[in-house]
Amino acid sequence: MEQTTTQQQVITSQELFKHWMGHRQLTRRVIEAFPEKDFFEFSIGGMRTPAALISELLAIAGPGVKQIVTGGTEKLQEDLSFATKAKALELWDKADADITRYWPEISNERFHERIVTFGQYEGSIWSSIFYFIDNEIHHRAQMYVYLRALGVEPPAFWNRDFGDK
Amino acid sequence: MEQTTTQQQVITSQELFKHWMGHRQLTRRVIEAFPEKDFFEFSIGGMRTPAALISELLAIAGPGVKQIVTGGTEKLQEDLSFATKAKALELWDKADADITRYWPEISNERFHERIVTFGQYEGSIWSSIFYFIDNEIHHRAQMYVYLRALGVEPPAFWNRDFGDK
Repeated sequence: MEQTTTQQQVITSQELFKHWMGHRQLTRRVIEAFPEKDFFEFSIGGMRTPAALISELLAIAGPGVKQIVTGGTEKLQEDLSFATKAKALELWDKADADITRYWPEISNERFHERIVTFGQYEGSIWSSIFYFIDNEIHHRAQMYVYLRALGVEPPAFWNRDFGDK
Repeated sequence: MEQTTTQQQVITSQELFKHWMGHRQLTRRVIEAFPEKDFFEFSIGGMRTPAALISELLAIAGPGVKQIVTGGTEKLQEDLSFATKAKALELWDKADADITRYWPEISNERFHERIVTFGQYEGSIWSSIFYFIDNEIHHRAQMYVYLRALGVEPPAFWNRDFGDK
């Protein structure tokens, strides 16, 4: 008899998915908040532009989850693959679709499996996914500072509803 | 018979604890990286100083976990309770000790319990704790931009070892 119930787990796979997707919706709103020109040119202290940071996040999320499911070992491809904010948002939505498609194929039994993402980064599946999420929060928060420096009010950090919590 | 094994869970309570503590050690290194004066005075775009951001994180982490265990309903106390970086670090370590003390008292069965933290914020125990961690990553990343703007190299984001992952 299967005894693993929601009540015996810290967080279920479906809850972690919704948690991440809530974060991804917020990151999408942060992309939208930038003036077009600043999205590709603004930076502080020699850091990367918003476009370059988003390129990194696009290189990680969709391809990372796909590799976890398919066992691929492709290296990170962080090259900027968009020349407009609209195209970046389109790629963002495509990544959402990829995550949504592959996520259900990660069974509970696999989250503690050891993997090497992008042929390079070793960890468990759970720690890899947490890294993807934490890294998104990290770079998005840097974009919050960019927006403030530009005089633009960023979207509220706490507003990430994507289903019940 | 108890059938909930590590292999059937996304992440165990102990893993989530270590994950957070790894983040907290990184945040500690970010505090250390600031010049004393800038820690209390620097800001970008009208945002809070590093000291004010750390005050918020201190108000949340230790007291939040304590409330989850003891059922307290005290409101958030974000007033700056330190006048030196050394004192902020001392309070940071004290919060680590509080989290370490109370964490084992949160049983697996409780993570989906509905709570109201600080008499105000409704959620599950897991979503409340994830909020504490995500909020720390968010504000720490803002301090990364401050450090870059000050010409100070921040500690590496990926370096958060605190036990095995």
